[in-house]
Amino acid sequence: MPLNHIRIVLVQPSHGGNIGGCARAMKNMGLTRLVLVAPEDFPGEEASARAAGADDVLAQALLYATLDEAIADCHLVIGASARDRHIAWPRLTPDAAARRMVSATAGQEVAVLFGRERTGLTNEEMELCKALVHIPTNPEYSSLNVAAAVQVLCYEVRMAFLASSEDRPLKTKTAKEDMPATTDQMEGMYEHLYQTMEDIKFFGTSNPDVIMRRLKGLFNRAQTTKREVAPPWIPPGYPPVTGWLRWEKCPGSRQGRRL
Amino acid sequence: MPLNHIRIVLVQPSHGGNIGGCARAMKNMGLTRLVLVAPEDFPGEEASARAAGADDVLAQALLYATLDEAIADCHLVIGASARDRHIAWPRLTPDAAARRMVSATAGQEVAVLFGRERTGLTNEEMELCKALVHIPTNPEYSSLNVAAAVQVLCYEVRMAFLASSEDRPLKTKTAKEDMPATTDQMEGMYEHLYQTMEDIKFFGTSNPDVIMRRLKGLFNRAQTTKREVAPPWIPPGYPPVTGWLRWEKCPGSRQGRRL
Repeated sequence: MPLNHIRIVLVQPSHGGNIGGCARAMKNMGLTRLVLVAPEDFPGEEASARAAGADDVLAQALLYATLDEAIADCHLVIGASARDRHIAWPRLTPDAAARRMVSATAGQEVAVLFGRERTGLTNEEMELCKALVHIPTNPEYSSLNVAAAVQVLCYEVRMAFLASSEDRPLKTKTAKEDMPATTDQMEGMYEHLYQTMEDIKFFGTSNPDVIMRRLKGLFNRAQTTKREVAPPWIPPGYPPVTGWLRWEKCPGSRQGRRL
Repeated sequence: MPLNHIRIVLVQPSHGGNIGGCARAMKNMGLTRLVLVAPEDFPGEEASARAAGADDVLAQALLYATLDEAIADCHLVIGASARDRHIAWPRLTPDAAARRMVSATAGQEVAVLFGRERTGLTNEEMELCKALVHIPTNPEYSSLNVAAAVQVLCYEVRMAFLASSEDRPLKTKTAKEDMPATTDQMEGMYEHLYQTMEDIKFFGTSNPDVIMRRLKGLFNRAQTTKREVAPPWIPPGYPPVTGWLRWEKCPGSRQGRRL
């Protein structure tokens, strides 16, 4: 079932009622994987009350202390964004985002991130995303409740799912190496990239954060694959940079590349 | 502003909280005209609390004792339906319904009806609709909260509105007579039709309700115009049937036709 590969991630939600509302919205549209990052008020009565018949979704919810852990194994991460961002991150409409998510479920793990009720996602959290999704709202009253935002997104996911089951092309097998890199793999590469750029004194007087953000934007737009993050033609152990490829647990696979 | 021609009609809502949630969902998407038919719990604290910053929508809400009054002047009425109906009423997806609604706003009054929390709209209320809209939900958990349903519909209306303002064709002026008939005009015709069929003993041993429902379905699908409901070539006063054309207030305009 494709929808099982999509998780809804709430980052530091403060109201239990909103968590319950999200669970109900998800279940209405056939999604069941709720992930909570450092929730302030969960479990609790408010969450259960608003969930109505969706308490099974609440009961199965996974809790993590950090967002990194919550999406480490995800190939496609999309962040919900109400505000305009400085950097040119790809911004999708909800229907386009949903189509991309549903077609990714043929073999990939997908996450949609929803930020804090008041402040949304931080820039650092946005940088973990391959794209942003923006729900168009009335500019004079744009504060969409998080459960309402989850409702709209999950509705579009269901529409995309129904459309795709009508005319899904024969599934073509993608080689493991040509799958999009997971968040963990991307982060490992960024760490290496940053270290290398510092080693060669690339940053000079520029702000490293700004440069890294632009680079991450580029790699995210490109839907970087595992093969590209860790090309097989680079000999193991070259170059010997600390922190590189922490996603590969076995020591023999430590690889690196100049970018 | 096209969205001003769309009203959201809640039929006998029982929970004030849901009314507030609907107001917020509407305002988020740029809709402001809320109509309440015989609400059980309004105005009240629950409604205001859930409305958050949308209390202006609540304050402007119009209250009616009956649905007929609430939509008497509407050209396009669409009913939200969770259940499958026996009769073949046109059933639209939310995006198709929204496109139709937004294109109708060039001169027409539009209403979307949402039924009671537990039982939805009655068959008689459905028969006032030119089409039904169905939000596809998880068949195993399909009970969409009314505020959530309003959120999804209003979101699709906004998407359709944004798309139409990008590529709206030059507005073509429709003659008043070629506009779709209003609910009131349609009801006047049905009343006449029923009376005539009874006069000619058309029903025989059949159930008149079933036959009328099928006929209404046909006229609704056809998007019947005012000209068709009250053709100008029929002399005033012919045939002299009581109750016919109660939509025309001036006595000189009493017209009729055999169907």
